[in-house]
Amino acid sequence: MARDPAARNLDDDCAVLEMGGEALVLTLDTMAEGTHFRAGADLADVAWKLVAANLSDLAAKGAEPLGVLLSYQLGTDDARFLAGLHEVLDTYDVPLLGGDTVRAEAGRSFSLTAIGRASHVPVPDRRGARAGDELWVTGTLGRAMLGFEGQDAYAKAFHRPCPLLAEGKALAPHVTAMMDVSDGLLLDAWRMAAASGVSIGLDSAAVPVADTARRNECLRWGDDYELLFTLPVGTTPPVDATRIGSVLPQGEAALILDGNSMPGPEHLGYRH
Amino acid sequence: MARDPAARNLDDDCAVLEMGGEALVLTLDTMAEGTHFRAGADLADVAWKLVAANLSDLAAKGAEPLGVLLSYQLGTDDARFLAGLHEVLDTYDVPLLGGDTVRAEAGRSFSLTAIGRASHVPVPDRRGARAGDELWVTGTLGRAMLGFEGQDAYAKAFHRPCPLLAEGKALAPHVTAMMDVSDGLLLDAWRMAAASGVSIGLDSAAVPVADTARRNECLRWGDDYELLFTLPVGTTPPVDATRIGSVLPQGEAALILDGNSMPGPEHLGYRH
Repeated sequence: MARDPAARNLDDDCAVLEMGGEALVLTLDTMAEGTHFRAGADLADVAWKLVAANLSDLAAKGAEPLGVLLSYQLGTDDARFLAGLHEVLDTYDVPLLGGDTVRAEAGRSFSLTAIGRASHVPVPDRRGARAGDELWVTGTLGRAMLGFEGQDAYAKAFHRPCPLLAEGKALAPHVTAMMDVSDGLLLDAWRMAAASGVSIGLDSAAVPVADTARRNECLRWGDDYELLFTLPVGTTPPVDATRIGSVLPQGEAALILDGNSMPGPEHLGYRH
Repeated sequence: MARDPAARNLDDDCAVLEMGGEALVLTLDTMAEGTHFRAGADLADVAWKLVAANLSDLAAKGAEPLGVLLSYQLGTDDARFLAGLHEVLDTYDVPLLGGDTVRAEAGRSFSLTAIGRASHVPVPDRRGARAGDELWVTGTLGRAMLGFEGQDAYAKAFHRPCPLLAEGKALAPHVTAMMDVSDGLLLDAWRMAAASGVSIGLDSAAVPVADTARRNECLRWGDDYELLFTLPVGTTPPVDATRIGSVLPQGEAALILDGNSMPGPEHLGYRH
C-alpha cells in the first residue's frame, strides 16, 4: 500500500516529503508495555526513550527536529511520564506540537511522531550503500545491554539514550547510506545491505564493544542508538567513528561476518 | 509544555508549521478498544474512521492531505484493518508514508498522524471568531447517533464518515474560525467560543437535525464530522451550510443556547 516514493518502500525508518524547496522528515514510533518496557518501569525513562528513539531516526537523516506529536494513554504515574517528557524535550530543545490523550483498558502504549527538516539534500537513506564503500559506526556497542542488566555505569545508556543529532547533521553531506542502530548492529547492517542491494563484510574484532568477553552479544543487542553509515573509500568522517567493514557487490548473503556468510535476519538481532 | 506557537496552545486539533513559504498542518488521533470502538467491531470500519477523523481535522484547516503515518498494534483481524485502510486511503487518494507495527498485550489501540499542506494562509483556526460574526454549520447533525443505534439508513454516517476536504478548502479563505464537529455541536461550539474569547449564541431550532423529536441529543452527540465555522456578517458561504447563531462579545457564559447561558463544558457533549 505504501507505494508513494516518500514512503521509501517502508524500508526506511522515516518518510521524506519534499515541500517548498525543503525536505521534511517524518517518523513514528510506539512503545508498548510488556513489549518495549516492563510494567512498573519508571515512566519518566519511558518518555525519554520514546522521544530519543524518534529523534535518533531524525539524526540518521541529518534532520533538525521541528517538533513532536504525542499519543498518550492515561493511567498511573502520568506525572512521571510528563516529567521525563519535559526533560527530554528541554534537553534537545524540541517543542511539543500537539497530540491526543486517550483512556483505554489495560496495556499502556505511547506513540510519538517526530517531524524534522533535512539539513542536507539528498536526505541520507539506508538504501545508498555502494560496493567499494567503507562501513563505519559511531561509539561503543553493548552499552545499553550492560545498563539493562543493571551495571550502574551503563544505566543511562539504557534508560536515557542520546540521539546523535549533531553527528547525523555533520555526516549527512558525506555518507552514501546511514541509519541508526536500534535493533542490534548485525541486524541493522543486514538491513542496510538488503535495502541497498549489496553485501556487507563486517569485521567483528574492529567493532568497539563495551564488554570484549561478550562481543557477540554486544553486536546483537539493540537500543544503543549509534549511527551506522557508509562512506566512499578513503573518506575520513567528520565525527568520531570506527571503520568496521566494507561494502561488497551483492553476493549470496547480505551480511558476511569475519568472512562467513550469515543466514537471514533471524539470528542477527537480540529480541528483547 | 506546548509553548511553541505552532502548537496553538493545544487548543486546536492540529499543529501548524511554517516551512519554506508553505504551511504544514499536522494532526494525530488515537482509537482505543473499549473507548473508541467496541471489542468485536469490524476493524475495517475502525481503520476507516481513524483515517477519516484525522482527515476531518485537516479539512477544518482547509488543508490538502500529503500522507499518513500509522502506529498499528497487531492482533486478530489484521486483514480487515488493512482492507479498511486501503479503502479509505484510496477513496481520498492519500499515501501511507510509514509508521510502526507493534505487538502488545490486550486492549488494541491504533494511532494515526496525518500531514497536510494548507491551501490558504492564514490557516483557519478555532480561535478566530469575532463578535458580530455569524455561526454556520454544514450538513445535518445526529446522523452518526442514529447509525450507532442501528438505523440502516445512517449506518454509513457512523461507520464510514466522510471528511469534508473539498468544503474545508473552499471555506478556508472566507472563515474567521473553523473546526470540525467531532464531539457534539454544543461542546464544540463552546470550545470555539472559549478559544476565541467570545460568547456564542446558538439557535437550536435552526440546526438541521436527523431526528427533530430528539433535537437535544442530536446537538450533543459527536462523530458527525461536519464543519462549524464563523463568517463576517452578511457573507454567504461557498458551500451548503446553515446559519445557526451569532458571535457575541465575551459574556459570563461561553455558550448561550436559545437565550439561556449554558454551564461549563461538562453537560454539552455526549460521552460515548
